[in-house]
Parts: sequence; structure tokens; C-alpha cells
Amino acid sequence: MNTFGHIFRLTTFGESHGPAIGGVIDGCPAGLHLDFSAIKRRVALRSPQNVVGATKRREPDNIEFLSGIYEGVTLGTPIAFIIRNKDVRSEDYADLEHIYRPGHADYTYDMRYGIRDYRGGGRASARTTVAQVVAGAIAEQWLAKKGISFTAFVDQIGPILIPDVPDGNDVDQSPLRCPDKFTEALWLDLLEQVRDEGDSIGGAVRCEIKGVPAGVGEPVFNKVQADLASAMMSIPAAKGFEYGLGMSAAAAQGTESNDEILRDTVCRVRKGQNIEKSTTPKVKFNTNRAGGLLGGITTGEPIYFRVVFKPVSSISQPQRTVTDSGQAVALQISGRHDVCVAPRAVAVVRAMAAITIMDQILLRN
Amino acid sequence: MNTFGHIFRLTTFGESHGPAIGGVIDGCPAGLHLDFSAIKRRVALRSPQNVVGATKRREPDNIEFLSGIYEGVTLGTPIAFIIRNKDVRSEDYADLEHIYRPGHADYTYDMRYGIRDYRGGGRASARTTVAQVVAGAIAEQWLAKKGISFTAFVDQIGPILIPDVPDGNDVDQSPLRCPDKFTEALWLDLLEQVRDEGDSIGGAVRCEIKGVPAGVGEPVFNKVQADLASAMMSIPAAKGFEYGLGMSAAAAQGTESNDEILRDTVCRVRKGQNIEKSTTPKVKFNTNRAGGLLGGITTGEPIYFRVVFKPVSSISQPQRTVTDSGQAVALQISGRHDVCVAPRAVAVVRAMAAITIMDQILLRN
Amino acid sequence: MNTFGHIFRLTTFGESHGPAIGGVIDGCPAGLHLDFSAIKRRVALRSPQNVVGATKRREPDNIEFLSGIYEGVTLGTPIAFIIRNKDVRSEDYADLEHIYRPGHADYTYDMRYGIRDYRGGGRASARTTVAQVVAGAIAEQWLAKKGISFTAFVDQIGPILIPDVPDGNDVDQSPLRCPDKFTEALWLDLLEQVRDEGDSIGGAVRCEIKGVPAGVGEPVFNKVQADLASAMMSIPAAKGFEYGLGMSAAAAQGTESNDEILRDTVCRVRKGQNIEKSTTPKVKFNTNRAGGLLGGITTGEPIYFRVVFKPVSSISQPQRTVTDSGQAVALQISGRHDVCVAPRAVAVVRAMAAITIMDQILLRN
Amino acid sequence: MNTFGHIFRLTTFGESHGPAIGGVIDGCPAGLHLDFSAIKRRVALRSPQNVVGATKRREPDNIEFLSGIYEGVTLGTPIAFIIRNKDVRSEDYADLEHIYRPGHADYTYDMRYGIRDYRGGGRASARTTVAQVVAGAIAEQWLAKKGISFTAFVDQIGPILIPDVPDGNDVDQSPLRCPDKFTEALWLDLLEQVRDEGDSIGGAVRCEIKGVPAGVGEPVFNKVQADLASAMMSIPAAKGFEYGLGMSAAAAQGTESNDEILRDTVCRVRKGQNIEKSTTPKVKFNTNRAGGLLGGITTGEPIYFRVVFKPVSSISQPQRTVTDSGQAVALQISGRHDVCVAPRAVAVVRAMAAITIMDQILLRN
Repeated sequence: MNTFGHIFRLTTFGESHGPAIGGVIDGCPAGLHLDFSAIKRRVALRSPQNVVGATKRREPDNIEFLSGIYEGVTLGTPIAFIIRNKDVRSEDYADLEHIYRPGHADYTYDMRYGIRDYRGGGRASARTTVAQVVAGAIAEQWLAKKGISFTAFVDQIGPILIPDVPDGNDVDQSPLRCPDKFTEALWLDLLEQVRDEGDSIGGAVRCEIKGVPAGVGEPVFNKVQADLASAMMSIPAAKGFEYGLGMSAAAAQGTESNDEILRDTVCRVRKGQNIEKSTTPKVKFNTNRAGGLLGGITTGEPIYFRVVFKPVSSISQPQRTVTDSGQAVALQISGRHDVCVAPRAVAVVRAMAAITIMDQILLRN
Repeated sequence: MNTFGHIFRLTTFGESHGPAIGGVIDGCPAGLHLDFSAIKRRVALRSPQNVVGATKRREPDNIEFLSGIYEGVTLGTPIAFIIRNKDVRSEDYADLEHIYRPGHADYTYDMRYGIRDYRGGGRASARTTVAQVVAGAIAEQWLAKKGISFTAFVDQIGPILIPDVPDGNDVDQSPLRCPDKFTEALWLDLLEQVRDEGDSIGGAVRCEIKGVPAGVGEPVFNKVQADLASAMMSIPAAKGFEYGLGMSAAAAQGTESNDEILRDTVCRVRKGQNIEKSTTPKVKFNTNRAGGLLGGITTGEPIYFRVVFKPVSSISQPQRTVTDSGQAVALQISGRHDVCVAPRAVAVVRAMAAITIMDQILLRN
Repeated sequence: MNTFGHIFRLTTFGESHGPAIGGVIDGCPAGLHLDFSAIKRRVALRSPQNVVGATKRREPDNIEFLSGIYEGVTLGTPIAFIIRNKDVRSEDYADLEHIYRPGHADYTYDMRYGIRDYRGGGRASARTTVAQVVAGAIAEQWLAKKGISFTAFVDQIGPILIPDVPDGNDVDQSPLRCPDKFTEALWLDLLEQVRDEGDSIGGAVRCEIKGVPAGVGEPVFNKVQADLASAMMSIPAAKGFEYGLGMSAAAAQGTESNDEILRDTVCRVRKGQNIEKSTTPKVKFNTNRAGGLLGGITTGEPIYFRVVFKPVSSISQPQRTVTDSGQAVALQISGRHDVCVAPRAVAVVRAMAAITIMDQILLRN
Repeated sequence: MNTFGHIFRLTTFGESHGPAIGGVIDGCPAGLHLDFSAIKRRVALRSPQNVVGATKRREPDNIEFLSGIYEGVTLGTPIAFIIRNKDVRSEDYADLEHIYRPGHADYTYDMRYGIRDYRGGGRASARTTVAQVVAGAIAEQWLAKKGISFTAFVDQIGPILIPDVPDGNDVDQSPLRCPDKFTEALWLDLLEQVRDEGDSIGGAVRCEIKGVPAGVGEPVFNKVQADLASAMMSIPAAKGFEYGLGMSAAAAQGTESNDEILRDTVCRVRKGQNIEKSTTPKVKFNTNRAGGLLGGITTGEPIYFRVVFKPVSSISQPQRTVTDSGQAVALQISGRHDVCVAPRAVAVVRAMAAITIMDQILLRN
């Protein structure tokens, strides 16, 4: 169960300190001219290099494409790619071979498989999300040709939220993927303080998708929001997903939740198969509390959603735990770890969103 | 894409005012003695009969099983069942044939399919969730034999939350599926007031699963939380999903989020295939902020999560909208509608949780 | 695992003597005007009514559609249908409750499930193929609009093969689905003789598909021939599948197997996604030994294949077997049984071919 | 659609002359100690090295495992592996860039994708089957621990069949994978003669699987024979599949096709889930015309089947064809090609059989 998607399908593999991590993309249409430097850029945004408060592990993350591409153009056959694990300091983990770290999947992997590669978290390491980012970057390139674009940024670290959602702000240069300079300064202070305490902190990522035409999605299972939720909850440390009004819908009334529908003069429509009806009304929505989705299907308005991430589990404060032989120990984790996962998760959220949307569009064409 | 699950798979079908709705369960193990009256009881809890603030539609919801069962015992072959649509007052909907109701899937279905059965919301009607409840009731019976149990209740309507989560409280008798008598009284007042305004209101459902052994789940995609999120976001009106600390994890620090691990003397373990390691440590968790899941796999602690539902879209206040020929109209919906969907959603949340857990357990056995 | 297909997906259910058999078709495009009498006709061709040498069981096979259709037009949502089991003489099977009939799945079902509905063969009964025929008839109607047509007929019963393959011959009126009058007479004699011996006999069905454009299929797994083979081997009693030169390819040389390619002036082509290449050569094949498939993908030439069926397992001659408590018994089967399954299998072969091709086309569009 | 299997799933990738070919195995149980030299041996048997009449291409076929294995033991996570393409003489194919070779997938790939990697046949090359052989070798090691074993050999080249099926004969040393010395001599003569003519020739492979317990398989779709047929028809050049009596069943009578069932004292049984029935009769079959399968489910007897392969399409005799710009040309293929594919296909047939059986067993456990 290491495959995501129905038509555009990503299978990932790899352990954090194994020979390589990577993925196979099946179902990417033929004829797409790939921009490899754009793929690299997106992968770099996930790497700890330019993120404040991130682990010091320095992987070059060189992506090697092995198949499915000829002279820079996709062949329609599976696109396999690998990233060798280079900056592996497994000795950092030697002490952890037999210890179940709180908040980590050490114990659950042992219960599930009876064996685990403890080095660097093995398969449970967030490092494996590089594969999602590569596939997402390819999906974005295909979707861009259809006028579909993605933005994602951190909108909360600890108790501090950004004041309002700016439009079209590029967060790639921000060390915390924050669209607001003032908030970013507050967060930098907060992260430093948390790190000094030997602690970590949670955060949230917001993503917006523009340009998806109305009529994409499945009506019962595999609704767009269901596939997005599944995609997001597959990201390590994700604890919650909401779209449109989200959690605040619980306290809202219908008049505050419904979007009135108005006539419009331009309207993006999907051409279905075998459908004879030729005229489609041109509508627009007065508001977009629905988050671009009604009944699991796109309305043509922007899709927006939010994912909450828990604090990084590796903290340097002492914690009580047990070894795999049942001995109680006090654990104090050293090594290279993020303080807050949200800034680096931005690239992964965006990638999984792109994979999900591309898959849903291909399901319909 | 009307199928949910990998091994225990539910395919549903049916429109609200068509001849019947129903489902096919594939992958239910042979030899399970079914308690049909228990299935009926769960289905009745979804029906508007005993729920205050629910639609006046009165379906008897007679379930007819067509296959997969011999003398009350499952055969291992597909279990098909149908529920005829009887109390159909399609004339209530005649005026709505060409109108896109705000908050409903009318417009998106037209964009997706170019045709729709407008009567009663067609396939988008929450009525279709009866099929999920039937399948969930069967899953619960199978899981009960393994010591796995489910509770679900409403924990929020509008801005009013229940004060704390009671243990083992049976909410089946409560007209709002509320575990707290005092809160229930407040909610009843609130619902009456909202109904008088011709409005509707949101709410939330909390679910808890006990007895799932450690070691169930998939580590990357199809994590338990990913499948649960997908299951919940497939329920009509769901806007958000969170488990464990959930959304509050964003503001938490690692020391407030990690669960310390302690030695234990009893421990439920999964027996894997081909795994030679014989000794497993007996551990328990000091807290359960993780919500019973680490790295997508169960810890053996209770799994708990929460789903937020938007206010019912059918409100009697006038709303601006357009017809399918593009004419602007003012819509005032009459007819039989819920004021708050959460009490009836309790049965569906619980059912989808049971389906998801049974599927995950079968994936591992 | 009672589902076939990737996009156009059929899930079937039902036991021979249970309340009903039926199916759910998911993924049928919206907007298809169904010809219900044509569906009935195809189902009638599978029924024993007009087939010589078939069981005397007389089911009316009334198909009730439950969903997915509004005013005769498909909605794009799941199409569920049931056929009630009416002419059930389960008492014929009372003696067989504990006996493992040779050639039947009685023993294997007991080993697989530990329980079985012995009446009429339960789920293993060929009666369940009615569901495939219904779905296949719908697929044919959709494919007919794209200029794709199907023919199927019996080409062998026992050692007697038809002399050559006629073109465009309608076998629906033939009691043995035989395109050749002279051969049919020989077969009728043979069947009578075999029946008199209390024995049964094997046969073969040939199917041809015309009008599928070049470029449909998957290149590695799920090649058109792989999906066709899987479809055909799922039909009860099928023992072999071959396409194009088939089994005789083993003895052929390359010069007798390759099809030379010539220039053509008309050519059916598939329009791919994102493919910029605009000019496609117009080719035709000098011969069609390939059976319309190269590398798993259609060439645009007719696809043809052949399926061999074993003799009916229910024979009235005495056979040694054991009961499910391990007692040795001599079994002499009475009751209503086919002598040769091939004539009735024609409708099923054709239906499964249509389902497979429709699915493959939808995979590509 | 480059994935095979339901639980034990193989995804393959790679073009013949691209950077690498390989695969990802998902669903292999944890705790399996791999014998890497045994994997190499099986891969070597597919390589042209020790096969008479095979291409002169000399790949070392070095398998590099990238994930899912720790200290030689499977982790339960995806096992990715690659084989670099080294002996690539793409210049041999330069002349073929724009030519549609008869019998090859050049034209159909162009119709399907609008683009193709012409070098060495790209994705359509039989070279890609190395990935299947690696996965099959791993499956065989897992199955061997359950007492399940595989044999496969060539039983026909051109019109010459082996006289009878020997038992337990090791064909790995035979240059034509022939279990009969005398027949092998005839075949060697035949191949030399065919090669001298600049032609190629067809053949067939027979495979037998012993030790699979009764009760494995799915009863409707995904019967064991359906999955086996799908697996075999996915191998390049396969034209037909038969099991048990196979094609000869068409001419047989029921008394010649049924297997009588006898009491036995030893019996391999499957332990199902939730099945209370404790006593199972001990039976054996007097004959095994069924090929070990009844109703899609194993009987406990050996499973045997046969696959026919067409003559190699690359022949040096001149053939008429056209270019991708529609020009008629006379093609004379030089380069390194097999004369008969059957001997090398033995390893692939056996591997796909192992993958299929392992998947079916995991589906049931």
C-alpha cells in the first residue's frame, strides 16, 4: 500500500538510510516536455537548506530519472526516479536501535512488521516525502498547461496565525514559507525560544488551487475532498484536515455557509463523454465558503484547504520510554532535527495536492 | 468510484427517489452469524424518526438481503442488499428541476455529468448513506468478536460544545445523540430557534474505537488516519477531520504532544506472517495524545477522531441563485429538511469507521 | 474480488438459488440512451430457452434496474440491477447437500470458505453470468456509437469444427449459435448421442471485435489480450484462451506470423492527451495474424480470439466421489443440465469482450 | 497500468535502452531472509548467455536492491531494484527510428502515445521482463517455505513436441530448457535451420506448481486461472494459455474430463477466518484433468498450464512495411535477435506463476 492515485499513480519506496529513496509515476500522459530545473527547485524547497529551524542534514537530493522519458519528453510509460541517500550519519542512530522514541513509529513498526530499519526512522522518515515532491512537481507542470496553479504557505506556527491570507504572494524566498513579514519575525523568535527549551512546536499549512474547471470529482467515495484528505493525512505528522469553512462550519448557520449563485458571462466548463446537452449556464458564486467543492465535485471556484501538523517528535528534553526488550529508559534525543515541520511540509502539501488534482482530472477525461 | 475499501469493499448505488438504494459488500469473511435486528437498529438510528430537528420524511428503511448469506451466516461471497425508496414525494422537488440550490451539488452534477436526477438530490442525497450504515453494522459485528468496539456522539452543535467526553455513555436513546443531558437541553433550544429563523446550523461528531491491537495500518499511503479521513470526508456535509490532538496540535509543543511509553504487563499484539521474532515488549502509553496512531499504524490505545459538518444547505430563507438555463431567481426551499445533520451523521461516522478498521485489519491478516 | 474492470467496473453478486442475482456497473458514462429490449434480447440468448441441449430450467430472467438511470438515460452513477431467482427447485439439490460433485466447485468452496450454499451450485453456478450479459449489453450499446461491433459463435463441439469462419453471419437464430447449417446438423446429432449416453461434451467459442481504433491498450500488464484472457477465464468451464494465430503460433515461423504493413488512405486514429504530433501515417496490414493486437495495443484491425470450454460436469453416469464427512459414495446426477455449455456461453463471451473493450477504451480517453 | 497483483504487487518500469529497468515489489511480508544468489541464478536463466538461438546481447544484469531490505531480510516495505542497461548498442536501431517493424509494437505505441523510444524496442522490449523474474524469484523463496514449488520447461518448438512430461527433471542446464535430451537435439537442428533461413519459430512453455493447499482462489473474477492467464498473456509474444485439459477439453466428454474424488488420509487444508467448522474430509482426486483448479479455486492437486509463444518478430528476411511518415519500405532486420523465444520465456513464465500464486495466497490469509 505504497501507491497513491487511480490513474496518475505514484508508488514510493525507500528507507531514510537505505541505498536510495524514490518513486515510480504510472499514468503520466505522453508528450509532456519536462522542466527539470523546476522539479529541482521544488525539491530544494523541501530540503532543510533554506528553512530556518530545520535539521542540519544536508542531502544534495540529486534526482536521477531512470525511465519513461526520452529527450526530455514523457513517453507515457512509467517514470522511475531515485535519490541516493548520501549524508547518512547512521551512527547518530546507533543508540536508538532498541529504543522506542515517543511520538515516533518505532514501536508501531515493530508491532506491524516484527522488524524495522531503525536508522533515521527508516521508512517512517519524512525524508521519503522527497518522492512525493518530485511527482507533484511533474503533476504541476502538466496542470499548468491547463491553467491550473497552486499556492501553499504556513499560516500558523504555535499559537501565532498570520493575520489574513494574502493573494499571489511568493513564499519560496521566505525561510519559514510565510507570506507575511511581520508574522515571520514573530515566528523566528518563537522557534528560537522553543529550540532553546529543547522542545518543538506545531504548525499549519494552507493550500489554494486555482483554475480547476467545474465538474471534476467523484460524487460518493473519492470525492475531491476525500482524496485530498487522504493525501494530506498520509504526510508524516499531519493531525487534521479542513477545507472551505472547515472546522468553523460547526458553529455556522446555513445562511453563513451557503454560497449564493449568480449569473456570469464567462464560465469554465468540462466537456463530458456522450453528453448531448450543449448549453451550460454561466454562473459564478457570490462567496466561496464551500472551498470550491460541492458534493465532492469542483464548482470552478478556487479550492482551498488547511492541514495541521503536530510538533516534531524528536525533542532534546528527557522523556520516559522503553526499549524493545521492555526495559524502561530515559531518552534524550540529540542529533539533527527540525523544530517545526510546517515550513518544509509546504512543498509536500502542494505536491500531494497537485498529484490528487491531476489524478481526479484524468479520471474524468 | 462508488467503492470504498481494499479487502472489505463496499460498493453503493442508488438515487434518493429512484427505485432503490443499496450496496454490495465484497470481502466479508465466511462464517459470520449475522444479527439482523442489530443491523436494523443501527439503520434506525440514522433515520429521522427519533432525531429531533430532522426531516419529516418517513422511510421504513426495510433492508432486503439478496445474496452472500445462507441461513443467517455469511458465505464469503458478495452480500448485496437493497432498500426500496417508498416515502418519495418527488412533487416537492418538481419546482427544483431546473434550479441550482445553493450549498447543494445540483450545479456540480450538471457540470460533471450533463444530466442529473434532481428529485430529492438524486445520488448526492444523504439518504444514500443508509448503505454505509448497513455495511458498517456488519463490520461492527465481525469486529466485536475480536473485542473491538465503537462509540460515537455529537460533541458540538453551533457554538455549544459538550463540556467533556464521558466514557461508555450510550447515546442511542438521546434525540440528539448527545452524551450530556444539560448540553442536550441547550441544543434543543438552539435548534428550535434556528428552525424558527428558517435557518440551519452546523455540528460535529466524535468517534472512539477501542480494542484495535497494535500493529494495524499502512505506513505511507493508506495510513489508518488517511483511510479514516477519506471515509469521513465522503460523508455529505463533512468539512473537516482531526484525530488525536487534532487541530490543537498546531499550537502545541512537543512535550505537550508526545506520549511517554511505559512498561506494561498485558499487551495486545498482532501475529505477523513469516516473522521470527518471538518476544514483544509489553508497553503502555502514559497519555494518548496520538489518538492511537503513530506513523499510520495503531499503538493499541483507543483511536479517536472528530468530524465537522456544515449547516444543512436546505434553508427556508430566500437565497439568490440561477436556473440551469442561466436565469437569476430567488429560491425559498420548503419541504422536509433537517436543521442540523450531526445527530443523524453519528450512525454514518460510526459505520464508516467500522468499515475502515475492518478493512485495515483484513489487509494485515 | 467480485469486480471486473478498471474504469468501467462490474461487480456481481448472487447465488443460484438465493433471492436474486445481479450486478452494479460503475463508471458507465452519463447520457447513454439505453435500449432495454436489446438488453433483454442478449440475456435471452444466454437462457436455456432457445438452445438445444440446454437445461430445462426456465427462468424468465426479468431484469429490474434499480439506479443510475433516469428516464431511460444513464446518469453516470452506478447502475444496479437484479434478477430474481424464480424457477428454483432446490429440492433437486437436497441430496447433494453433503456430496462433492466431480468437476464442480463443491469441494473447493468448502476448502475456501468452510461453508457453501449447495443449492444449484450457489455462487459457482453459471447462472450468475446473467449479470455479465446485462453489463455487456450496455457496453455494446455504448461501443456501437463509436462504430465498434461484436460477433461470437460456436466454432467447435466435441471433435467437430466448423469448416471456415463466415463473415457477418447472424447466429442468434441458430439453436447452437452455429454459423454453418451443415455443421449444426452434425452437432445436433452428436449432442443427442452424448445425452443418450448420460454424458456431456466440450466446445469452443470464437469472438471477433471490429472497429476498435488503433492505439487502445496497455503495454505491459493489462494488455488487451491479458484483460481479455482474464475475462474469458473467469467464465465457468473455460479451459483455454488464444488470440490471433493462437496455439498454432507455436508451430509457425516468423514469416508465417508477421503481418506486413502497407500504406493506406483511411486510418482510424486515437487522439491522445498532450500529444503534439499531428500527422499520423495511414497504414493497413496485409494480413491479420496478430489478431488485431501488437504489444498489447490495438492495431486497428479486427480483434479475434477463441475460448475452449470443458464438458459440463453434471453427467448422469455414475461417478465415484466422497461426502463432506469423508464417506465414499457413488453419485448419479439427475436434474436439469446442459449437455454442452458452448452455445449458451456465446452470450457470455461476447458480453465479457464488450466489457473489457469498453474499459480499455475508457482507460485511454 | 504497469502494476500486477492485488496484495503482492509488482510495478515495473524501464525502456530497453534507457538508463535502467527495474521494479518495485509492494506487499512482500516482513522477515523473509533473501537468498540473493538464487535470485541471480533465476535472472541468469532468462539472459541469453546460456540459451542457444538467443540474441548475442550480453548484459551482466547486475541487480541493485535499493529499499525494503535490511541486513538481507525483508522489512515489509517496498522492495525496489534496478538493473542498469549496459550493453546498449542503440546505433543498431538508428535505422529503425522511423520504421514500423512488422510483428512489433512500433506502430501501436505511436498510435497509443504519439511518441516512443524506438531504441531496442523501448518499453515493449522483452528485456523488461527481467523485473518480473526478480520479483518471481523472491516470491518463489517465500512460497518454498510453505512447501510450494515450481517447474517450467519448453514442451514445443515449431512442430516438434516433447514425447511426454517428465517428473522433477531439472532443465536449468539445458540450453533450450528441454527436459528431454532426444527432443533437444531435434530442436537444435531445427533452430539452426530456421536461423539459416533468416527466419524465426514459435514454441510453448509448460509450467507446474506443486504444494498449493486446497482452498486458494477467488470464485468469480480473479479466479486462479484468470490471474494466471492475465499474467501469462502479459509476457511479450504469448498467444495462448490453457490449463488442465486445456484446448483438448473442447473435444472431450464429461467422463473424460471429470476427476473422481476418493477418500484420503492426508490432506492439506487452509485455515479460514471466522470459520467454525472444524472437521474437513480428507480427499484425493483419482486424476488431475482439472489442472488443480475447480471453480477458480485450488483443489490441492498440482496446477499445470501451458503458454504458446509466437515466432520472434525480428527476422532477417525482407518484409514490406511503412515508415512513420507513411513511406513504403522494404525492411531487412540485422542485429542480435533470438530465433525462438520459448527457452528464455521459461524463466518469465515461472516467475509470473510464482507472483500470481503468492498474491492469491496472501489474498486469502
